[in-house]
Amino acid sequence: MRALLLVSSALLIAAAPPAKPKTPTEIAAAAPASTWRDIDPDDLLVMDLGNGGRVVIQLAPQFAPVHVANIRALAKGGWWSGSSIYRVQDNYVVQWGNNESTKPLPVGVVAKPPAEYHRALKGLTVRPLGYADDYAPKAGFASGWPIGYDPSAGTANLTHCYGYVGVGRDLSPDTGTGGELYAVIGHAPRALDRNIAIVGRVIEGIERMSSLSRGTEALGFYKEASQNVPISSVRLASEIPAAGRPAFQVMDTMSPTFADYLRVKANRKDDFFIRPAGGVDLCSVNVPVRKKPA
Amino acid sequence: MRALLLVSSALLIAAAPPAKPKTPTEIAAAAPASTWRDIDPDDLLVMDLGNGGRVVIQLAPQFAPVHVANIRALAKGGWWSGSSIYRVQDNYVVQWGNNESTKPLPVGVVAKPPAEYHRALKGLTVRPLGYADDYAPKAGFASGWPIGYDPSAGTANLTHCYGYVGVGRDLSPDTGTGGELYAVIGHAPRALDRNIAIVGRVIEGIERMSSLSRGTEALGFYKEASQNVPISSVRLASEIPAAGRPAFQVMDTMSPTFADYLRVKANRKDDFFIRPAGGVDLCSVNVPVRKKPA
Repeated sequence: MRALLLVSSALLIAAAPPAKPKTPTEIAAAAPASTWRDIDPDDLLVMDLGNGGRVVIQLAPQFAPVHVANIRALAKGGWWSGSSIYRVQDNYVVQWGNNESTKPLPVGVVAKPPAEYHRALKGLTVRPLGYADDYAPKAGFASGWPIGYDPSAGTANLTHCYGYVGVGRDLSPDTGTGGELYAVIGHAPRALDRNIAIVGRVIEGIERMSSLSRGTEALGFYKEASQNVPISSVRLASEIPAAGRPAFQVMDTMSPTFADYLRVKANRKDDFFIRPAGGVDLCSVNVPVRKKPA
Repeated sequence: MRALLLVSSALLIAAAPPAKPKTPTEIAAAAPASTWRDIDPDDLLVMDLGNGGRVVIQLAPQFAPVHVANIRALAKGGWWSGSSIYRVQDNYVVQWGNNESTKPLPVGVVAKPPAEYHRALKGLTVRPLGYADDYAPKAGFASGWPIGYDPSAGTANLTHCYGYVGVGRDLSPDTGTGGELYAVIGHAPRALDRNIAIVGRVIEGIERMSSLSRGTEALGFYKEASQNVPISSVRLASEIPAAGRPAFQVMDTMSPTFADYLRVKANRKDDFFIRPAGGVDLCSVNVPVRKKPA
């Protein structure tokens, strides 16, 4: 029996001679240094789990400034130390925080942030996806993020793609403080777009969340508190001494390399593929992120 | 801190008074008996894992008849007893079978099946999705399955949605025997549509696969054979004595109830939602399946 099957990308980097059609991963791996943008250490949330695993989240202050400011204040205040992951719902979300506790919020956290569910399109430089979207009039990329946008309304919003992080909230008008966060671990639940504040995306360690045991209570909550996954600390990278500070870069979505990457994502012709799709949905594009080279 | 957040469906069944907008789950729960179609026990593959968990797969002989006939023969021949899950790639697939072993195929298994990557549109009664698709000229539902279709070419294909099961293969012209199977455990990798045979979907126990530890080798293969997850047996439901045989039903996708379900999926107005999307992508619809009532 053949082992292979479903070649996605990584293996081909070594195997494919230059003349062959490139994979998206090969294009990202060969991207010139000028293509990459450093992520600000104030935009990196470093979550260390009790089991030794680490999850790193890139924050998106351009899209939800008050919620992101809250999240920075919560991190600096050590609010998540001793908190836990308490909900894991299959094909939906992992959620963490202090849940129903009455732990006081650190000074500076806005208790009732505005509903940052979309922002002005103005001020963003947009690369259109070039294919249809079922959840917004248009889809594309801005500042390294996938967005839905509405040129006639002049609005843009982040989208619930795999690994994206949003702010848990109660029924409207509650908008959530940012203390309870969730990450998408299944097919993009984009009906949530524009109904909740998206504040970033997991750029390292999503598999430490997505492989957790599913909760058996309604909505995937764990039945017993003993099932919760402890969180040791959540810090901004900027709080970590430079020597041990994680550093990442994101591909400039206005770069020619990203244009090439997007084109190939929609038209896979590398070895495994017989029929290129001729299209791609927004959440299948996955803007490239990498560790910053030493 | 509020517990809630991200109400999906289940909780609201009990909570919502009749006048409120219904959730998709409520519509499925209230569907009349005439809406449901029994799944043939020859179309149910019952996989029992070594850890005691069970995964049930509904086969789709209408779309890949030779591959499905192979899978039935492999099950009847006990070919997967003692096999294992040997690949778990995050946001992509779980894969199982006998991998690189030389275990002989049971009598009756076609060693080189045709490329059943699409079928004739003729013979299918289609309910259109009604919204755009990035991977096929049209998307919709037929016989309880999500499909992409091309009216001008007269073809239709199953789609790589969450939980859908395909046949691992080597590079073309190999099409796979059906011995190595995979299930989608992430955002729908629809670029694979029409490049590989889809043979069914997981209708029970997908969380037993999606929560497995990710493999650390290229493409998510486990590094050591000791990490593989043992499979005790894979049988057709029709091989199991009637008293202990699992039985399921699928919603008729041509029924008025499914039309209602689809409409609400694209226009969520229940308590949690502020802005209905006004659209839905094919893989977010999830055709309702239930255990057959006693």
